[in-house]
Amino acid sequence: MSVVVVGSLALDTIQTPSGERTEALGGSAVYFSTAASFFTDVKLVGVVGRDFPREHLDLLRRRGVDLAGLQTAEGSTFRWSGRYEGDMSQARTLDTRLNVFGAFRPVLPESYRDADAVFLANIDPDLQLDVLSQVRRPKMVAADTMNLWITSKRDRLIEILPRVNLMILNDAEARQLTGETGLVKAGRKIQALGPSHVVIKKGEHGSILFSGKNVHVVPAYPLEDVRDPTGAGDTFAGGFIGYLNKMKNRLTDDNLHTAQYYGTVLASFTVEEFSLDRLKRTTFADVRSRLRRLVRIVAPRKLS
Amino acid sequence: MSVVVVGSLALDTIQTPSGERTEALGGSAVYFSTAASFFTDVKLVGVVGRDFPREHLDLLRRRGVDLAGLQTAEGSTFRWSGRYEGDMSQARTLDTRLNVFGAFRPVLPESYRDADAVFLANIDPDLQLDVLSQVRRPKMVAADTMNLWITSKRDRLIEILPRVNLMILNDAEARQLTGETGLVKAGRKIQALGPSHVVIKKGEHGSILFSGKNVHVVPAYPLEDVRDPTGAGDTFAGGFIGYLNKMKNRLTDDNLHTAQYYGTVLASFTVEEFSLDRLKRTTFADVRSRLRRLVRIVAPRKLS
Repeated sequence: MSVVVVGSLALDTIQTPSGERTEALGGSAVYFSTAASFFTDVKLVGVVGRDFPREHLDLLRRRGVDLAGLQTAEGSTFRWSGRYEGDMSQARTLDTRLNVFGAFRPVLPESYRDADAVFLANIDPDLQLDVLSQVRRPKMVAADTMNLWITSKRDRLIEILPRVNLMILNDAEARQLTGETGLVKAGRKIQALGPSHVVIKKGEHGSILFSGKNVHVVPAYPLEDVRDPTGAGDTFAGGFIGYLNKMKNRLTDDNLHTAQYYGTVLASFTVEEFSLDRLKRTTFADVRSRLRRLVRIVAPRKLS
Repeated sequence: MSVVVVGSLALDTIQTPSGERTEALGGSAVYFSTAASFFTDVKLVGVVGRDFPREHLDLLRRRGVDLAGLQTAEGSTFRWSGRYEGDMSQARTLDTRLNVFGAFRPVLPESYRDADAVFLANIDPDLQLDVLSQVRRPKMVAADTMNLWITSKRDRLIEILPRVNLMILNDAEARQLTGETGLVKAGRKIQALGPSHVVIKKGEHGSILFSGKNVHVVPAYPLEDVRDPTGAGDTFAGGFIGYLNKMKNRLTDDNLHTAQYYGTVLASFTVEEFSLDRLKRTTFADVRSRLRRLVRIVAPRKLS
């Protein structure tokens, strides 16, 4: 079992009420890969510049992430800078420098093309389509998107949706894509556009999964200290898709709900510290322990 | 087992994206009583004017609510008018006419004074203290509050907290009371002010219960159509406290978590229609059925 992920590798400069970090490891493909690697083999597709610190690649390699699809281009790595305030529910982007990511064209090595699952992080829908044309018979195609593409490339995005089994996006994106304020209606509308399964991420409020006619809700793991929410959504997706891939991409209701729990728990580690500082130290025993605790927090022991 | 509730009876004029209603039955004590009456005997303390429609009192009587503590004063009933927009997470108050509620002094009939539980809805903290001086040995004292009292009567509110076992308030109030943005920290700070148990209500995102050192999170029941959120919080409190009262006020972790589920489910009926239109038609079989469904939606069936 293996998952191909296409997305960004970045150097993030972040300010939150807890502090700030300059040029720390980030990017959707990095968070996703690290989380998914708890469950399955990950094959990464992306691009970095010559300035990308070698230690970051070593971190991914140590987690068994296949970097055959990683391009190193002349120029600087993608940089993003943002600030979180108050309840940190939204980042304010201070600066985006696409650098080598601006001209990125994903090319899947031959060894990737038979992967049974694909995760298309929030890259340009044209590139998402391009990736889909390069894989042979994936059993599970999952995708994320962002406000930029919903506005600027809505038609292309709509074109992709029927080819996606599992759409993962946040509450604001779901509202923007559907014009619905209520998230249950929004989720149903997205399903009607193609994907049989939809996850709407709600940040500190958890997530809603639409699985066929069923719906599942998992609240976020309650934390006393959230230091940096960057990467929470991609970490969630990594845990979610990684677990489903391990379960042979069988999208049963039980597997999907369990995957939602794993995604939730993994994301809770990411937000506890800046960048991947906490996630990279996390063991599977940590994950299992927090998962059991989350179930005790959420699931009733008796219903008399 | 019985619960004394002190709060408002009101005629609400409400606009939401789904429509509007004029002078519909409302008020914290009305929602609370109706919800709590699924589980236990409710003794209401409040005031109405001579204009209060008799049918509303008949509704409460049919649910077995004891109205011996209801005063009928010369003048008009309390009226509130508000509008909800967008995601309906907050009401914008258009008009408040306290009328007879402005001069309200709660007087507990002798038959109320041995009640084993008290719920102090969000009335003036001075009146909340007054009520506590009139009950003899309640085993459970629960209270709500609102932004007005946190601002204008903070000292009195702080004075009450050590006499409250169970504080129930919403996310904005918890933040305002504690100065903490993070709700886990806010809940812990409120516990430190006195109440061993605290519930923070998060509207469409559910609630967090702080029970001693434990924490429980229950998401809201996912609904496709929310027509009017008015009264959801008081309905939650009624289900929550009513169930605990039925369980002999034993504030065990299991009882509290189950109570949180019942409060959540009852509130989901309230918001489906305006005023008490849906809640008053709800049977206990409806409640049990939705409770089982909520558990299936939330609790994982397996964790492999």
